[in-house]
Amino acid sequence: MRGSVWRKAKSVKEASAVLYNSSSKKKDALLKAIVSQILGHIPSILEANKKDLNAAAAAGLSEVLTDRLTLTEKRIEQMVGGVNDIIKLPDPVGKVVDKTKRPNGLLIEKMRVPLGAVGIIYESRPNVTVDAAALCLKSGNAVLLRGGSEAINTNKRLVALIRQALNDVGLPPGCVEFIDSTDRGAVLEMLKQDAYLDVVIPRGSQQLIRFIQTNSTVPVIAHGEGNCHVYVDRSADLSMAEEIIFNAKVQRPSVCNAAEKLLVHESIASEFLPRACRRLKEAGVEIRGDKETLALVDGAVLATDSDWSKEFLDLIIAVKVIKNLEDAIQHINRYGSHHSDAIVTRNTKNGERFLREVDSAAVYVNASTRFTDGFEFGLGAEIGISTQKLHARGPMGLEELTSTKYVVHGKGQVRK
Amino acid sequence: MRGSVWRKAKSVKEASAVLYNSSSKKKDALLKAIVSQILGHIPSILEANKKDLNAAAAAGLSEVLTDRLTLTEKRIEQMVGGVNDIIKLPDPVGKVVDKTKRPNGLLIEKMRVPLGAVGIIYESRPNVTVDAAALCLKSGNAVLLRGGSEAINTNKRLVALIRQALNDVGLPPGCVEFIDSTDRGAVLEMLKQDAYLDVVIPRGSQQLIRFIQTNSTVPVIAHGEGNCHVYVDRSADLSMAEEIIFNAKVQRPSVCNAAEKLLVHESIASEFLPRACRRLKEAGVEIRGDKETLALVDGAVLATDSDWSKEFLDLIIAVKVIKNLEDAIQHINRYGSHHSDAIVTRNTKNGERFLREVDSAAVYVNASTRFTDGFEFGLGAEIGISTQKLHARGPMGLEELTSTKYVVHGKGQVRK
Repeated sequence: MRGSVWRKAKSVKEASAVLYNSSSKKKDALLKAIVSQILGHIPSILEANKKDLNAAAAAGLSEVLTDRLTLTEKRIEQMVGGVNDIIKLPDPVGKVVDKTKRPNGLLIEKMRVPLGAVGIIYESRPNVTVDAAALCLKSGNAVLLRGGSEAINTNKRLVALIRQALNDVGLPPGCVEFIDSTDRGAVLEMLKQDAYLDVVIPRGSQQLIRFIQTNSTVPVIAHGEGNCHVYVDRSADLSMAEEIIFNAKVQRPSVCNAAEKLLVHESIASEFLPRACRRLKEAGVEIRGDKETLALVDGAVLATDSDWSKEFLDLIIAVKVIKNLEDAIQHINRYGSHHSDAIVTRNTKNGERFLREVDSAAVYVNASTRFTDGFEFGLGAEIGISTQKLHARGPMGLEELTSTKYVVHGKGQVRK
Repeated sequence: MRGSVWRKAKSVKEASAVLYNSSSKKKDALLKAIVSQILGHIPSILEANKKDLNAAAAAGLSEVLTDRLTLTEKRIEQMVGGVNDIIKLPDPVGKVVDKTKRPNGLLIEKMRVPLGAVGIIYESRPNVTVDAAALCLKSGNAVLLRGGSEAINTNKRLVALIRQALNDVGLPPGCVEFIDSTDRGAVLEMLKQDAYLDVVIPRGSQQLIRFIQTNSTVPVIAHGEGNCHVYVDRSADLSMAEEIIFNAKVQRPSVCNAAEKLLVHESIASEFLPRACRRLKEAGVEIRGDKETLALVDGAVLATDSDWSKEFLDLIIAVKVIKNLEDAIQHINRYGSHHSDAIVTRNTKNGERFLREVDSAAVYVNASTRFTDGFEFGLGAEIGISTQKLHARGPMGLEELTSTKYVVHGKGQVRK
């Protein structure tokens, strides 16, 4: 097994040299071939998925995880639609992002190039296999995939079809390699392939990401958790605030950009909290509050210290009454996960101060945190949402899957 | 000692929150105060430096390293000049690098913000202490410095003066912390402070950098070695090629952008190599060649296999006769360190192919590799030269010491 991970990483590195110089036309032809292969083999994909679902049932996998694992004809078509969307996006490779002519006549351009060999580590959703491969290939990167064990049969089938497509257009199979060992030793081995991999992008639980950051000698772009806040300022439009917190908490509670915390200025707490929390409770949300909140909201339970830094990913919200804007900013910077945080206010100065001082990947004034997303931000695609500060922060699209190089044109210049 | 590293990293993180929101005016006032403190205390700096030099003499430190360690009044003035140059540079923080208005009315801006808490690990030169601190502070970052043990007294004195300057302008001392323990355990401890440090930037030997990459749980921006190539194509202007290889090899052989390899197209080798190598030999350069080179160049010795991947940092060059452009590109991508590589050619098509296919931080046509440098590239400053692909590649200036955040203005938008 160990030998196999090493060999696959090497194969990806070698194939990356071919992709590095492949034209946009060639890469789009490949994505089209992937679409054809998948659409031409829906029954066999569903059959492989059925195997995974049977194993999941036997293992007693939770309903949520089983749903993530499940493919249907419609979901396969959505997956293929995603690839078609990526085909339409402009190729970032070769784009000159900066250009300067120096006094000595040197023309210096900064040009986007592929990262090279990308490792993706993800959990249960099999659509990530196709999605991540398509994004990496379009941006000229070869990719080593390592999906969750629950989806192993589905993933193997999808990768076989992608590799058939590589063959169809005459690109090496190493452009997409898949680690079919499901034990954690294989991940550990993958994390030591710094001779071959340029970056590893983990998508999954905080625990998985922590494991990867601790053990990887390959640079990591972490997609961490979202402990997102909505702060309702004293001057907020309270109806707007109610809509925003309801949307941020309830519309899709299982995702990283859902709100987990509600902070409310003390001067409007007695007016705002009862009505906002009533609506949240009607939608099934459990309210955990500080003492001030408990005095205002029926049925709220006392929040524990650890609740303030927790990502619930569920219909739970922790609510705190706050003295002023400064305390709100401090609370968010201290307990938050630096993902997405919003203020609701009619005071422009307060809004600007919040935007400036809250140190998160995305900061909002008067909008739901749920917009932190590659599609919503207009990137046209998304490989994930980075919560670290290096290389890419926030939603990552095709450009974030590239590096740059300096391209210098001279006429014989030498250094004095 | 362990406790001390941890406490200093925490102190830097806390101070970074203050710097994050400090105005350009405040930061420039700080840099001016640093200039004043240093200029006002030259004798005590030289005294501290004298201690280090005495210890170096007693330990039998090499001439090169002793020279790097040595401060003089003139060198201190140059150091201060560097800080004055940084004051004049525009503050990258707050700059909007991208802006989009979405169909739903959301205004999304991508804005430069400080990285936060930066760790710098460097070796003998004490000027790096002031230089790195000034660059980090100007870009709004607090910094944890760990310099080489040889310069410990000089560094401590310089840091004391910087911290006096912080006090003068009313910024917390944690903006610049210095690890005064000289053992490697302190570095190891620093590399585990991912709770506090946002990035570690190592500058030094390949061995040091490898140690850091292997052991760090903090993201690293590696400043690796430069095994740089000059390839002389069949259509090259041979006089130009001679000037370029002479400059790239001889002008400053101890730096990472100096050429270590000369590749020559076989059709011009017999004309070019004798004259180019004669001149190199006259400058004291040792020629290590393949068999074809040995037949053409008097006094050349046979290159070993390992020579092709070696960074000599000395008056040594390895020379190889190459069949064609494709082989040259393959050789460079295989044996090079992806730092800086040049082609000399009059054939535009060959030049463009080389620029496109050589996967290095800087690629040149008809110019010396010695230009890979923050000042030569017009960045106005340089914290180092990154040889990795994530975040920053090539010379790193102030902008490369920043991250971004998405700043979103809404009017009550919620996700559908």
